[in-house]
Amino acid sequence: MPSQEVNPDLLKERHTATFDPHEFAVFWAGGEERYKEKKSLEKMFLEDPALKDDLPISYLSHKELYEHSLRKACIIGEKIRKLRAEGEDGVDTYNALLGGSLGAAILKEGNPLTLHYVMFVPTIMGQGTMDQQVEWLSKAWDCEIIGTYAQTELGHGTFLRGLETRADYDARTQEFVINTPSLSAYKWWPGGLGHTANHAVVVAQLYTKGEFRGLAPFIVQLRHSDTHEPLPGIDIGDIGTKLGMKSVNNGYLGLKNVRVPLNNMLMKNQQVLPDGTYVAPKNSVLTYGTMMFVRCALIRDTAQSLAKASTIATRYSAVRRQSPIDPNQPEPQIMDHTTQQLKLFPQIAKSIVFKTTGDGIWNMYNVLSGEIEQGNLDRLPEMHALSCCLKAICSADAAAGVETCRLSCGGHGYMDCSNFPTIYGMTTAVCTYEGENTVMLLQTARYLVKVYGQALNGEKLVPTVAYINDALKERQFVNFDGSLESIVKAFQFVAANKIRIAYEQIEQRRRQGHSTEMAANLSGTFLTAAADLHGRAFLAESAYTELLAVSRQVSPALADVLKVVLELYLVDACLNRIGDFLRFIDITDKDVTTLEIRLQNCLKQLRPNAVTLVDSFDLHDRVLDSVLGAYDGNVYERIFESTKKNPLNKEPVNEAFHKYLKPFMKAHL
Amino acid sequence: MPSQEVNPDLLKERHTATFDPHEFAVFWAGGEERYKEKKSLEKMFLEDPALKDDLPISYLSHKELYEHSLRKACIIGEKIRKLRAEGEDGVDTYNALLGGSLGAAILKEGNPLTLHYVMFVPTIMGQGTMDQQVEWLSKAWDCEIIGTYAQTELGHGTFLRGLETRADYDARTQEFVINTPSLSAYKWWPGGLGHTANHAVVVAQLYTKGEFRGLAPFIVQLRHSDTHEPLPGIDIGDIGTKLGMKSVNNGYLGLKNVRVPLNNMLMKNQQVLPDGTYVAPKNSVLTYGTMMFVRCALIRDTAQSLAKASTIATRYSAVRRQSPIDPNQPEPQIMDHTTQQLKLFPQIAKSIVFKTTGDGIWNMYNVLSGEIEQGNLDRLPEMHALSCCLKAICSADAAAGVETCRLSCGGHGYMDCSNFPTIYGMTTAVCTYEGENTVMLLQTARYLVKVYGQALNGEKLVPTVAYINDALKERQFVNFDGSLESIVKAFQFVAANKIRIAYEQIEQRRRQGHSTEMAANLSGTFLTAAADLHGRAFLAESAYTELLAVSRQVSPALADVLKVVLELYLVDACLNRIGDFLRFIDITDKDVTTLEIRLQNCLKQLRPNAVTLVDSFDLHDRVLDSVLGAYDGNVYERIFESTKKNPLNKEPVNEAFHKYLKPFMKAHL
Repeated sequence: MPSQEVNPDLLKERHTATFDPHEFAVFWAGGEERYKEKKSLEKMFLEDPALKDDLPISYLSHKELYEHSLRKACIIGEKIRKLRAEGEDGVDTYNALLGGSLGAAILKEGNPLTLHYVMFVPTIMGQGTMDQQVEWLSKAWDCEIIGTYAQTELGHGTFLRGLETRADYDARTQEFVINTPSLSAYKWWPGGLGHTANHAVVVAQLYTKGEFRGLAPFIVQLRHSDTHEPLPGIDIGDIGTKLGMKSVNNGYLGLKNVRVPLNNMLMKNQQVLPDGTYVAPKNSVLTYGTMMFVRCALIRDTAQSLAKASTIATRYSAVRRQSPIDPNQPEPQIMDHTTQQLKLFPQIAKSIVFKTTGDGIWNMYNVLSGEIEQGNLDRLPEMHALSCCLKAICSADAAAGVETCRLSCGGHGYMDCSNFPTIYGMTTAVCTYEGENTVMLLQTARYLVKVYGQALNGEKLVPTVAYINDALKERQFVNFDGSLESIVKAFQFVAANKIRIAYEQIEQRRRQGHSTEMAANLSGTFLTAAADLHGRAFLAESAYTELLAVSRQVSPALADVLKVVLELYLVDACLNRIGDFLRFIDITDKDVTTLEIRLQNCLKQLRPNAVTLVDSFDLHDRVLDSVLGAYDGNVYERIFESTKKNPLNKEPVNEAFHKYLKPFMKAHL
Repeated sequence: MPSQEVNPDLLKERHTATFDPHEFAVFWAGGEERYKEKKSLEKMFLEDPALKDDLPISYLSHKELYEHSLRKACIIGEKIRKLRAEGEDGVDTYNALLGGSLGAAILKEGNPLTLHYVMFVPTIMGQGTMDQQVEWLSKAWDCEIIGTYAQTELGHGTFLRGLETRADYDARTQEFVINTPSLSAYKWWPGGLGHTANHAVVVAQLYTKGEFRGLAPFIVQLRHSDTHEPLPGIDIGDIGTKLGMKSVNNGYLGLKNVRVPLNNMLMKNQQVLPDGTYVAPKNSVLTYGTMMFVRCALIRDTAQSLAKASTIATRYSAVRRQSPIDPNQPEPQIMDHTTQQLKLFPQIAKSIVFKTTGDGIWNMYNVLSGEIEQGNLDRLPEMHALSCCLKAICSADAAAGVETCRLSCGGHGYMDCSNFPTIYGMTTAVCTYEGENTVMLLQTARYLVKVYGQALNGEKLVPTVAYINDALKERQFVNFDGSLESIVKAFQFVAANKIRIAYEQIEQRRRQGHSTEMAANLSGTFLTAAADLHGRAFLAESAYTELLAVSRQVSPALADVLKVVLELYLVDACLNRIGDFLRFIDITDKDVTTLEIRLQNCLKQLRPNAVTLVDSFDLHDRVLDSVLGAYDGNVYERIFESTKKNPLNKEPVNEAFHKYLKPFMKAHL
């Protein structure tokens, strides 16, 4: 075991802090009550010896990892059952256990039961009739059946209308006959589908009375309730090893004339009557809501991932010493190298801004879903556009930030025991799932170009794009004084200009005779650039608004730190898009140098609080699961200890020496 | 087995090509003769059934993977022995087998014997006396002993003077006593050190007659020649699982009073006499040479990695269909989306430019090492500075490019069977090893700032930095006309200005009272930015010079394609640093839009040749090892086939169902 004493360099860092980490930790957790809940869940889950790993999972084969993970998933499921019985299973608990930090502390490569809880059950709740909910929900909640959600196919993802799986209604038997008519129609990717779930919601193209009706969800039993053997017509398995999410048991599913009763189609929104008559849904807006909900949640997840990576890299950078600044001095903590600060501190700032923005969006979403339930859909397109681009930007920035943190730890960051490879694998996945990032940006851009046209026609736009009205009024941005407010305003001005250019590109191509759709495709890179700036302008404004609001509610000591974080975030964000600033705003080379020096000053100001800031994220050592990032900073002891667990090191001489190496070495003797 | 027929979309692509892929392939291989050698090596190695994998290695545990890899490494070693006996073991053969594409086709996560061939043997050749070479080299060449190179320590990497391992000369017994006096002194990372090598060159701080003498290399036997048991005083093992290089058997090594004879210190450059008298080396320039050699080789490796990733993503993008451009049309090949082209084609262009630049640098290096042997060290600092920043830029861009390619393939890129995760793991490693990238940029910057000062004093600079003289003469860049030549010149002008700013930042901080070293540290981010631009200016010029030179030697059809590649590369590079261009050069918003439209035109022009260009990289299907990127484009069949190999799918019901899931599901019944 590593010594229990804290590394002296880390101790020193904790003494230089100018604020109380506990105050920050409570804010970060979302208030006193949440903080206590978090601690209590940590106690319940992380102190259970059955949920600890003796052997790091990176040493397991894919098959062993699945078995190991299913064991733990069932223990977690049992505890969830207990919490549910006690009425303690709120949304936050599910989030923490299945998607969040606590879940990752137990099953860092993912839980094969997650989709049961976060997709199968909610789909029945959202799309099943009352009768269907009665029939299925209690079984699902009790885990008497385990389900997943099967939509994406081997050959079809983003474009749902392209799905090939079809369900033909047979009025004679009052059954649907479900088929995946080709290899590319195989369902692909659903978590837990491989060997875990015995049911799935299968999304298929519905045909009744020989006519195509659109997509519909069907509950399909996949495996026998007792033997777990795949049922007739079901071809099912695990899709194989992946960059991350290694224990999610993502599966494939082929269906051949699989029959399910009429009542297995989830019929809250659309219905098929026994004779095959189809009753269309009133509106398809509600599914938008779910997607937005998930994307809002993802923004907060990216903040957590980046906070994890920042914590590990920052603590390591306080302990690691390398390369004297002055040749006559000893090697400094690497965090004293300005170049290292520029790698780490913007990630800390982004973690905080993504988190507060995620919270803000979450609140907006809640207001909105109240409005939707009242039948008011006015803000839906705006929120949809915003959630798309923020999902794309935050996931891409977080993934890049995790890699920056990893690389900042040199070779040691490359070792699995640093936990960076897993954090990266989990974070970069967010760039692809729940709407691939480029597709997301294009969806946002479509909205932006549309409202730009409206603004040109003199219409007053909704709040998050109202800056386009302003930019059209004042064609020049004259007052760039470098203040934070002015950076935010400049971001919006720049975004408005990027949207203008995208709009003009499309218009120009239409004038050249292209269809609107082809014009949009040919302008694709202008569109994604516009959506990127829109999202960044929103992040800048949100950072400004939210962090100043928080600053007014906390102690002056913490408020001062948050102001440095805000300035660092905004100046760094501005410099990262300085080409666009220079392009549309009258600033000079000298102004840029001034911003660069300001960034350096922010780094310098943050330096004494860096370790305490990441401490305040209050990430349990088990959540970090990193030899480089533990609270005690006993980096080298922990690295060395990790090698002792390596199965290769259990024997001094591996048998491959005798089998292969020795005959090779002695061959010519 | 997938069908042998080529996917019709790929066939179509191959028909639209305007040039002969064989002509390009020969150029890419380095001429007819090299091309034939390549094909012959491929035949010899890739058709050997003993070197094929039945089970994809991603399904093996770490221990199984080591055993599997050592088996193959010994077969490769045996073949190398045969080639050597036939006099066919040139540098290119070693490169191909141990670092290059062919080696990766056999051992994609690395070869535990590589360091024996590329570090142990060359170190003895480079640093051993004639007598020592006689003693050790034939044993090493014959693999009677297997060695590695142990320099980096757990707590010490880049800063060699910080190494803790020490060798104390004991004149009484004429032995060195070698110790790793603390945990942080443990040797860490050497490939093959874990369980494979029985010898190592250990780099240690030398003490004779109680005085410190500097670093020296020692040959140390680690394991018993017959039993392979670690020798007394040797604590040795495998450091554990990693992001990539999973089968290299990187090891750790602790030494406790290990005694080696006087003659085990490699004494070509410095000597210890029997009585302990120390004879210092004449100059330390030669080791610079080796580092430069390795970095030049790495630039070419990054080109290969990016070519691999580009090939996979481009072929997949021709086969995959998604998201109609026009809602009334079928889903197009995703390569028809402009946003997809912007992801792929710049990577193809970079692969080509990194390769030609790598070749150019390689030739410069060869000229230079001739000069060094003649005692002429004039161009050494210039070449050192150049190789440092190019290593950093090419590795960082290649790693980012690989990820762009992976993400462009959506979810399927995330599966290990795409091979992207391995390619990324291997490519991003180059950012850290052989000189961490930030350290590399700082070394370049130190040189740049120095020569900037010389230029200010009116000195005429050496060729690769002569643009600083020009920039100092003409303070304004007036003739930006968008021509390729003008983009190259503008890159140099921008680089000169970034160097100026770095210089001024240091000077200003010195005037504020900081030491030169502290001033440099405080200006660190200005320094790395300057080095980055210097490298990119060199790449731009090299792309321009080399590709136009090649164009003059090839058929007009191929020349036309290369010119599009060149324009795409330069315009994209310029837009990626557009902030710097706008900052220092008088260009307008309209100019930028013009460049952006030009980039789109380049994409459009490259579109019909994209698949054939990557075909021309002539990467064997085994080298690509990707279900998404095979020559026949049978993507879905190959993905599906890969799931059949998954050990989890060998049984319809995994035993974990009975052990964990069933009891959990039935618990409440």
